[in-house]
Amino acid sequence: MSYTELKREVFEANLELQKRGLVIYTFGNVSQVDRAKGVIAIKPSGVAYEDMRADDMVIVDLDNQIVEGTLRPSSDTKTHTHLYRHFATIGGVTHTHSTHATAWAQAKLAIPCLGTTHADFVYGEVPCTAEMSAEQVARDYEEETGVQIVRAFADRDPLAAPMVVVAGHAPFTWGKDAAKSVYHAVILEEIARMAFLTRTLAPQGDLLARSVMDKHYFRKHGKNAYYGQA
Amino acid sequence: MSYTELKREVFEANLELQKRGLVIYTFGNVSQVDRAKGVIAIKPSGVAYEDMRADDMVIVDLDNQIVEGTLRPSSDTKTHTHLYRHFATIGGVTHTHSTHATAWAQAKLAIPCLGTTHADFVYGEVPCTAEMSAEQVARDYEEETGVQIVRAFADRDPLAAPMVVVAGHAPFTWGKDAAKSVYHAVILEEIARMAFLTRTLAPQGDLLARSVMDKHYFRKHGKNAYYGQA
Amino acid sequence: MSYTELKREVFEANLELQKRGLVIYTFGNVSQVDRAKGVIAIKPSGVAYEDMRADDMVIVDLDNQIVEGTLRPSSDTKTHTHLYRHFATIGGVTHTHSTHATAWAQAKLAIPCLGTTHADFVYGEVPCTAEMSAEQVARDYEEETGVQIVRAFADRDPLAAPMVVVAGHAPFTWGKDAAKSVYHAVILEEIARMAFLTRTLAPQGDLLARSVMDKHYFRKHGKNAYYGQA
Amino acid sequence: MSYTELKREVFEANLELQKRGLVIYTFGNVSQVDRAKGVIAIKPSGVAYEDMRADDMVIVDLDNQIVEGTLRPSSDTKTHTHLYRHFATIGGVTHTHSTHATAWAQAKLAIPCLGTTHADFVYGEVPCTAEMSAEQVARDYEEETGVQIVRAFADRDPLAAPMVVVAGHAPFTWGKDAAKSVYHAVILEEIARMAFLTRTLAPQGDLLARSVMDKHYFRKHGKNAYYGQA
Repeated sequence: MSYTELKREVFEANLELQKRGLVIYTFGNVSQVDRAKGVIAIKPSGVAYEDMRADDMVIVDLDNQIVEGTLRPSSDTKTHTHLYRHFATIGGVTHTHSTHATAWAQAKLAIPCLGTTHADFVYGEVPCTAEMSAEQVARDYEEETGVQIVRAFADRDPLAAPMVVVAGHAPFTWGKDAAKSVYHAVILEEIARMAFLTRTLAPQGDLLARSVMDKHYFRKHGKNAYYGQA
Repeated sequence: MSYTELKREVFEANLELQKRGLVIYTFGNVSQVDRAKGVIAIKPSGVAYEDMRADDMVIVDLDNQIVEGTLRPSSDTKTHTHLYRHFATIGGVTHTHSTHATAWAQAKLAIPCLGTTHADFVYGEVPCTAEMSAEQVARDYEEETGVQIVRAFADRDPLAAPMVVVAGHAPFTWGKDAAKSVYHAVILEEIARMAFLTRTLAPQGDLLARSVMDKHYFRKHGKNAYYGQA
Repeated sequence: MSYTELKREVFEANLELQKRGLVIYTFGNVSQVDRAKGVIAIKPSGVAYEDMRADDMVIVDLDNQIVEGTLRPSSDTKTHTHLYRHFATIGGVTHTHSTHATAWAQAKLAIPCLGTTHADFVYGEVPCTAEMSAEQVARDYEEETGVQIVRAFADRDPLAAPMVVVAGHAPFTWGKDAAKSVYHAVILEEIARMAFLTRTLAPQGDLLARSVMDKHYFRKHGKNAYYGQA
Repeated sequence: MSYTELKREVFEANLELQKRGLVIYTFGNVSQVDRAKGVIAIKPSGVAYEDMRADDMVIVDLDNQIVEGTLRPSSDTKTHTHLYRHFATIGGVTHTHSTHATAWAQAKLAIPCLGTTHADFVYGEVPCTAEMSAEQVARDYEEETGVQIVRAFADRDPLAAPMVVVAGHAPFTWGKDAAKSVYHAVILEEIARMAFLTRTLAPQGDLLARSVMDKHYFRKHGKNAYYGQA
């Protein structure tokens, strides 16, 4: 059983993070799941993007056991696998410390839907998790990061808001595969930057009207979508 | 009847959007009208800039019927054609979600004329449209976006302020052709950025004096202009 | 009498403006004076940087008469010559609409000396001119821009603050030659950006202590300077 | 006794400053100590990065006497040697005027620990020194800059917060060698930028919870670290 293709996709998605300017040094990590095989490929921990090869990606099962690979997987691996176990529809996960999204996370604020750029990708606000308790941190920090994210989606479809900011920490994004989760990381950074500027210009400004939000979201998503090529 | 040259100009204007850093992924779209033939060429919907060829531009008449092309035109096509029908003097239209102009749109604020960089291109403020009603959104969203823009110019010459921010959405700009509309999109982003910084430094600061605004605008526009080469 | 070398230096200084990211399109202009010959070379008006050649620089005397050149000189020429006539020690002048310096100009605020980066180059604040009266604008706008700048230096050595922001407009900088005036334009943009961020963080923060300002300025300027190579 | 390797490492670390966009022109300087030989290599004063060669690095002993080199050492040399004399565990020092870190220095504010990006590298706040007295400035400015930094670490391990902002001035960072001190300069600029944005969004926001700060810092540092490869 070979993971060559899975590793290659994850490797390229990780490189894309750097090309898009979302990470410096060894920051960030991307994974993709193979649900049939019950494994994910994920970036190794603390390896420079310049030195990384596709074969350095680590294959881990959904209980966090290493299946293949000589390097340690990302220290955030348990957050990734937690998301795959609880969000059945996602295929890829990205974690970055991109500047503006991280500022919202550090401010412990959800990103309100202030315009159509946001509504094109996210239905409603980008949630911010609740802060973790000291007990959670002590118990299993990375696993509990996943717990906090899943709780923030108790009433929401994770594909209708494929992104979150973790309070005090930074964003996680996801999608149908690794590449799409990186795409959402780029979109989130831009949404977060626009929302920062908007709130600075008009601290008490209104949200985007519900009718416009619905229009933009549903013209790109769901059975009546008409954006893009058929 | 061939549209080769029209498509080429629109294609290059769309690429320029990306080169100037105003768009990511498939964001943004540019069109140009051929008034004699009663058609526009416009970017196809949701196609990556890297993959686009001149021949992918879609030819649409001013009633939004596809005349030539195998791809779907931009989902914003009806806004473009609405502008061409109501603004008789314009030849090209650009739509972006450039960061700072979009922030003003999301704040639902016109961009005040705070300096000569603005007055070199726009006489008076860059208008912000009124918000659309839920009825308008339901009726024909993209057409009604054009309606809101045209209303914002009820008392103004669209060439004296070749740009607008649509409340909750993002900017549209125009000019004598596609290339000039992109030029105005770049200028708007810079004006919007400067105005953001100025308002942050001096929230209650005065507008640019009327005499200086007139001087700058009219030294570049109209019969007494003396900027540039004769 | 040939101006080849003068034109070349001014041409290269203009290109440097673009390389340093201080200008877009045809924004900005740089000149240099040859005091022995009583002329300046200056960028032509409204010509794209990509198309410009050294020989396009226009030679103008200090009374604004064209001495050599087939193109119109910059529309700001009278401001440049006014500065050369009144500031005997300067050899080059640069005008840009660089983003952060322009924001201070638009806010009609002098840039306070908040740190050593500023004090390394400017002794005291970067002045902001008084606003021009409507009469001045009508009389001879570009000449009067020079008048306002010179007035702002009534009590100051223009080489001890080789830069100014013109209220409602944008910065002018100068130095011993064209290259040095561009250097000061780059420095001003960075000082203006740092001051913007500092004022946002601490709106009522103190100025840099006088003793530190003196230390930094005089370790780089004057007879006791010890920065750089002897 | 040859310093070829020491000079090469310091030269490359200085170039890295420029590649990472932390400095313009001749701003910034990096040094590294050889404790066995009792010397440091440091960037020469006021030399352009483009013109610099490895052999231009100046070898200075810890009493600031030039041991080898034909150029003047950085005007900040005494600050560097002061740090090496008082912080026994550090091997490299970097000084920049990077934009956001300098803004915090100019605001005379320590950078609070607002998120995990910060906690991954710095335990607790990034300190801001006390302002220097006029007497200190007059006595020996560069030496006293070192004094102020060391005082800010009276109760702290300099490796647990390998960076400081000097009030009214700019940052200094350090690490086990020159390369690591540059790495910390890049990290500081990013931390400072995120903290600026966070404080603008939420001026009264809470610090990062102590439990999370401990978790992030200690998963990367100390005997129980598990980030990166073993």
